Amino acid sequence: MISITRRYPFSASHRLHIPALSEEQNMELFGKCANPYGHGHNFAVEVTVRGELNPRTGRVIDLTAMDHLVDASLIQPMNRRDLNRDIPEFSGELVPTTENLISVMLARLQSVWPENFPQLQRVRIYETRKNTFEISNL
Amino acid sequence: MISITRRYPFSASHRLHIPALSEEQNMELFGKCANPYGHGHNFAVEVTVRGELNPRTGRVIDLTAMDHLVDASLIQPMNRRDLNRDIPEFSGELVPTTENLISVMLARLQSVWPENFPQLQRVRIYETRKNTFEISNL
Amino acid sequence: MISITRRYPFSASHRLHIPALSEEQNMELFGKCANPYGHGHNFAVEVTVRGELNPRTGRVIDLTAMDHLVDASLIQPMNRRDLNRDIPEFSGELVPTTENLISVMLARLQSVWPENFPQLQRVRIYETRKNTFEISNL
Amino acid sequence: MISITRRYPFSASHRLHIPALSEEQNMELFGKCANPYGHGHNFAVEVTVRGELNPRTGRVIDLTAMDHLVDASLIQPMNRRDLNRDIPEFSGELVPTTENLISVMLARLQSVWPENFPQLQRVRIYETRKNTFEISNL
Amino acid sequence: MISITRRYPFSASHRLHIPALSEEQNMELFGKCANPYGHGHNFAVEVTVRGELNPRTGRVIDLTAMDHLVDASLIQPMNRRDLNRDIPEFSGELVPTTENLISVMLARLQSVWPENFPQLQRVRIYETRKNTFEISNL
Amino acid sequence: MISITRRYPFSASHRLHIPALSEEQNMELFGKCANPYGHGHNFAVEVTVRGELNPRTGRVIDLTAMDHLVDASLIQPMNRRDLNRDIPEFSGELVPTTENLISVMLARLQSVWPENFPQLQRVRIYETRKNTFEISNL
Repeated sequence: MISITRRYPFSASHRLHIPALSEEQNMELFGKCANPYGHGHNFAVEVTVRGELNPRTGRVIDLTAMDHLVDASLIQPMNRRDLNRDIPEFSGELVPTTENLISVMLARLQSVWPENFPQLQRVRIYETRKNTFEISNL
Repeated sequence: MISITRRYPFSASHRLHIPALSEEQNMELFGKCANPYGHGHNFAVEVTVRGELNPRTGRVIDLTAMDHLVDASLIQPMNRRDLNRDIPEFSGELVPTTENLISVMLARLQSVWPENFPQLQRVRIYETRKNTFEISNL
Repeated sequence: MISITRRYPFSASHRLHIPALSEEQNMELFGKCANPYGHGHNFAVEVTVRGELNPRTGRVIDLTAMDHLVDASLIQPMNRRDLNRDIPEFSGELVPTTENLISVMLARLQSVWPENFPQLQRVRIYETRKNTFEISNL
Repeated sequence: MISITRRYPFSASHRLHIPALSEEQNMELFGKCANPYGHGHNFAVEVTVRGELNPRTGRVIDLTAMDHLVDASLIQPMNRRDLNRDIPEFSGELVPTTENLISVMLARLQSVWPENFPQLQRVRIYETRKNTFEISNL
Repeated sequence: MISITRRYPFSASHRLHIPALSEEQNMELFGKCANPYGHGHNFAVEVTVRGELNPRTGRVIDLTAMDHLVDASLIQPMNRRDLNRDIPEFSGELVPTTENLISVMLARLQSVWPENFPQLQRVRIYETRKNTFEISNL
Repeated sequence: MISITRRYPFSASHRLHIPALSEEQNMELFGKCANPYGHGHNFAVEVTVRGELNPRTGRVIDLTAMDHLVDASLIQPMNRRDLNRDIPEFSGELVPTTENLISVMLARLQSVWPENFPQLQRVRIYETRKNTFEISNL
C-alpha cells in the first residue's frame, strides 16, 4: 500500500466573525482575524490517497483524473475568492475558519470521489508557515 | 559596507479593480484577481539597509529599532487587513496591485526613516511563491 | 476530529558529551557534535493537538491560549539559550541530544496541559533540514 | 518511542513508458513523462526509524551507521543516474514510476537493515514540490 | 522603477560530456554529472523585468502575456525533456551545463521579447538547493 | 558574464557580548543574544562568483575546486563550533555578530582566492529565516 500526496496552492480571503456576538466578543475569540473587512492567505491543500500499486502501470491512481477532480471541486471555486461570500457553505452561520474550511473541502471531495479511486486517506491545509490543519485516517 | 535584509510576513486581502472600467475590461486586465469580493495572500516584505559596521558593537543598525519602525508603519496597519478598505492610500483611485503596494510601503518607510539610520537600500515583497516585486538602488 | 499543528521556531546551542567517557569515545559517539564548546541550531518545535470542532466557533482549540502555554513552557526558557547550561533537565547526566530534548519538551507540555484542552497528539522537532524528531500517538 | 526522520537528496532521471503499449497509450497513461528521452528530478528520500531512547547516550540509532547504510544502498547507486538504465530493478518490465521507485528503495533497505537497528517505520520520496510518495506503518 | 520576478519550474535531464574528451577527462571535469546515461533536476527559471508603473492600472507588465511568452519559448519545449537530445541548441558541441542553459534561455527570450515590454533585467536558474546561476544587468 | 552562487550550510553557536560593558548595557544592545552561555543557528553561507563562460567546457569555474576552498577555509573550521571560542578572529575584542562573521568570512576567502579563479562577487549569510547579511559588488 502506497500513499500519494498531491499539493494544490490557492489564494483566498476570509473573515472570522460570528454575527450573534458583539465586536468585542468576536475580537476575543478571533483576534485580528475578526477585523471587519477580512484578510487572506496563500493556502495550500494537500490531498492524500492510499492504495495498491497497479503492477502493469506502476501507478496507484490516475493523477490527471485526480487533479481534475480536485481542481473542479476545490481550486476553481475557491482560488482568488472570498470564502465568506463566494462559497455557499459559508453563506449561513458557518464561520470560515480553516478548521471549517477543511471540513467543507473534505465533504466536497467525498461527495464526488469515484468508487474506482483508491481510498481518500487525508486532507491537510497549510494556512501560513505556522499553521497546519489535518483530517486523517479517513 | 554590509547589507542587512529583514523579513516581515503579513496576511492581507486585496481586489484588483478599476471602477471606471467595465467588468469585462477589469477581467481582461486582472483576471481572477478582479473577482468581486477579493482574495488574499501571505505576503512577506523584506527591508534591506546598507551601511558601515560599527567597530565597537559589530552592528550596522539597531535591529530592534528597525523592527519597531517597520512594525508600526507597515505590519500593524496591514496585517490581517483588507488593502482596499483599510489602507488610506488605496481609498481613492489607486488600485492595490502589489506593484502599488510596494510603492506605498516604500513611501511610508521613507517618510519615517530616521536620519541616523543607515541607508534604506531595497524593499521587496513576496506575494506568492511565484511572484516577487522589488524597488532597489534607493 | 481535526488535527492542528502549530510551529514555534527557536535558536539554541548544545554540546553532546558524556562526562564519564573519554574524548575519543565521545567523538566516536557524537562526531563533531562533541566539540568542546558546543554549537547551535535554528530549531522549530511543532505541537499538534487533535479534537472536535466547536460548531459555534469553528475552532478546535483557543490558539492564543495554546501559544501562551507553549511560549511560557518551551520557547521563553529555551530560545537564545544554551541547552546544557540553561535548562535544568540537562544539568545532570542527561545529554541534550535532540532525542532527549523532545522528551523534555513533551514532559513539560504534559505537566501544564489543561484538562479542557483537546488532546496533545504529537510533538516534533526540526533540528536541521536533514533531521526531524517526533513523538506521536500520545 | 521516538521517531527520527533523515532526509537524503539525490538527482536522477527517468522515463515512464511501457514497451508493450503504443506511443499514444503511453502518452495517455503518463503524459509528458512518457517523452522519448526522459527527464529528471531533484528527489529527496526520507527514511524514518522508530525506537526507544538509549538512556545513556540519548540516542535512538547510530545516525552515522544509518547514513552509511542509506548512502551505500540508495544514494550512491542512484544519485546522478538514469533510473531506467542504471538501476537493475528497472531493467525489465518494471516502469520507474516514483511509486515503483519507493517500493524498490524500501526493498533495498529491508534487505540490508541490521537486526540491531531500530524498526524501519516509513520511507517517503519527494519528487517535486507537488508530489510526495510514502510507505508507512512498516 | 519596479522589478518584478516570476518563477517557472520545470523538470529536465542532462548529461555533461564532451565527445572529444576521454571518459576519464570527462569525469575529471564533470564528476558524476558525466555518467553515461545522464540524470535530472527540478529546475526553476526566474525571469525579472524592470519598468515603470502604469499609473492607471498599477501594473508594470501584462503578466499573462509574459507568462505566455516564457511558457512558449522555455517551459513547453524543455519541461519533461532531455536537454541533450530534445533541445536543438545542444545538438552540436555545446555541453548542456546549466551555465550554457541559462545563456540559451536568455538568447531565446531576447529573440522574442516584444519592444513594448519593459526591460528584461535578469534571468536566474535554480538547479538544486545548492546551485544558482544568473545573468543580470541586461 | 554569468554569476554562480553556491550554498554551504553550517551550524554554530555564538554569544553577543562586549566585555567592557555592563550586563544591562549588553542586554540593551543585543537583547537575548547577550545571554551568558550563548545560543546557535543553522547558518548558510552563499558564495557568488562572476566570470565568463569557457566555451569548451560550458563552465565558469571548477566547482569542485571552489568547494574545497570554501570547505577548508570556512566550513570545516566553523561547522559545529562555537564562534566565540573556536574562531581565532573572535578571540579578542571582535564581537561575533553575523555582521562581523561575514567580514571574517570574506577576509578568509579573499586571502586564499586563487588568481585564476573568476571574481568573487558576493558573500551572503542566512542566519535565520528572518535575517540575511550580504557584502556585494566586490
